[in-house]
Amino acid sequence: MGKLLIVGTVAFDEIETPFGKTDKILGGAATFIGLAASQYNVESGIVSIVGEDLPKAYLNVLKDKNIDLSSLEIVKGGKTFYWKGKYHNDLNSRDTLVTELNTLADFNPVVSEGFKDADVVMLGNLHPSVQLSVINQMEKRPKLIVLDTMNFWMDNALPELMEVIKHIDVLTINDEEARQLTNEYSLVKAAKAIQKMGPKYLVIKKGEHGALLFHEEKVFFAPALPLEEVFDPTGAGDTFAGGFAGYLAATSDLSFNNMKNAVIHGSNLASFCVERFGTERMEILKKEEVTKRLHQFKALTQFDIELQ
Amino acid sequence: MGKLLIVGTVAFDEIETPFGKTDKILGGAATFIGLAASQYNVESGIVSIVGEDLPKAYLNVLKDKNIDLSSLEIVKGGKTFYWKGKYHNDLNSRDTLVTELNTLADFNPVVSEGFKDADVVMLGNLHPSVQLSVINQMEKRPKLIVLDTMNFWMDNALPELMEVIKHIDVLTINDEEARQLTNEYSLVKAAKAIQKMGPKYLVIKKGEHGALLFHEEKVFFAPALPLEEVFDPTGAGDTFAGGFAGYLAATSDLSFNNMKNAVIHGSNLASFCVERFGTERMEILKKEEVTKRLHQFKALTQFDIELQ
Repeated sequence: MGKLLIVGTVAFDEIETPFGKTDKILGGAATFIGLAASQYNVESGIVSIVGEDLPKAYLNVLKDKNIDLSSLEIVKGGKTFYWKGKYHNDLNSRDTLVTELNTLADFNPVVSEGFKDADVVMLGNLHPSVQLSVINQMEKRPKLIVLDTMNFWMDNALPELMEVIKHIDVLTINDEEARQLTNEYSLVKAAKAIQKMGPKYLVIKKGEHGALLFHEEKVFFAPALPLEEVFDPTGAGDTFAGGFAGYLAATSDLSFNNMKNAVIHGSNLASFCVERFGTERMEILKKEEVTKRLHQFKALTQFDIELQ
Repeated sequence: MGKLLIVGTVAFDEIETPFGKTDKILGGAATFIGLAASQYNVESGIVSIVGEDLPKAYLNVLKDKNIDLSSLEIVKGGKTFYWKGKYHNDLNSRDTLVTELNTLADFNPVVSEGFKDADVVMLGNLHPSVQLSVINQMEKRPKLIVLDTMNFWMDNALPELMEVIKHIDVLTINDEEARQLTNEYSLVKAAKAIQKMGPKYLVIKKGEHGALLFHEEKVFFAPALPLEEVFDPTGAGDTFAGGFAGYLAATSDLSFNNMKNAVIHGSNLASFCVERFGTERMEILKKEEVTKRLHQFKALTQFDIELQ
């Protein structure tokens, strides 16, 4: 069993989609990453910060999945990070209506002793300085460091972002962000440029259009499963990252071939995440359902052209 | 060897991309379909119409690939269909600057005797009444009828389009057109709706995001090969269709498994088409290059997750 350290938000989300809306519900990058990784044989811990206003039941969702919360700070009298957003009709774009950083504004992450030797570190989308601080607290270089980020940090903390990505193995960003980071329109050229910045592996997430894995001259593509209904895309990218990192931590095989499998596993879990609001689907997801859908991924992509 | 009848334009194209521009060069749906299909062991013929202004050298490009032109009408003193377009910087969208129908305005297709028994009919993008006329001229039901169309005909000739698609086996359209035709945003739902309209197979082309093949409850996805440079997208969709239909005509295997292979073959050829202006790349494309890139498609999509 591998040990996986997860860094990211544990948050209140309030979501409106064309299909309905929620009150404040459990959300946050670390939450989705942790739930996804819990599908695999890993010992996971979350580094995060919340306020006392976060219901105990929400933390129990994570504890019930055997996720260690000894690195999760609960600020007395503090308020938890809160995001409110509304998706457009195509579900591919959204407006952020409210962002309250609250306790996240002064987050100094502290990794508990038991996780300073984690095999895999999954740095969820957060300020790059927070991500770097976690790397620096590790007592030995983890076997694998994966970092997820977004255009917000490219716009507002680019020097810090460039610094932290020097120290990581895998970067996961979306196609527009890859273009922004490199000024290259071609994703193949962008991938080459990013590998020169530090990470030897790059995952470009294209939402409903799948994900690309780049390493040296190699490239692998995993489609998103075509779904009859996408209900709520919130957390799909984090779920992908959690499946990717969780699978790699559990299998302890960092070959390119196994990274391909990890991309498929991440895409597979993300296809469940979007079926219900927030974390609903991931909380009740069963191993048999995961395996069944992996068969669908095989059927979706595998072909038998005989080649000399 | 299968017999393939191709219907579509043989045309003058004048193209501007961010990388340069052309004078009037050889283009047209039937041209690209024919060049793509010539990669396979097929006996192809084109049903089309041109004016006397089309240089003999352009017709020789097709003849040199052993494409039969006995169903291609050359109108004395007539002018050939002419399209001029300019691509935007992302190459995903374009403006049509000029469309001159010329001889195409009064096109009454006549299928020569030698092709009335074709095994496969590939109806390239044209007025649905022209497409239907060709079907009606066949002396027996072809083993496979594939139809490509676009939103223009949905806007301007929907009743005729709905009539012709009752008679076909495979429809190829892009994602936005699938949504327009069915009023369904989900491509899975759109695919179900389209199968009720007639075609038992549907290919949804997503350009740089690949292509989906639907049949009953089954779905297969072929990515587009991630390319360092896309030079000119003109003809990529027709090249895809030509590879798809040509491969099926050559192999005479209409199983779903072989259709998957056909989608890969079509995607493979389309990845070459975009490397040069117009037909340049397809004219000189060698079998060894095609095979080599099929290996890349395998590497791009195949993975080894062991499933119970």
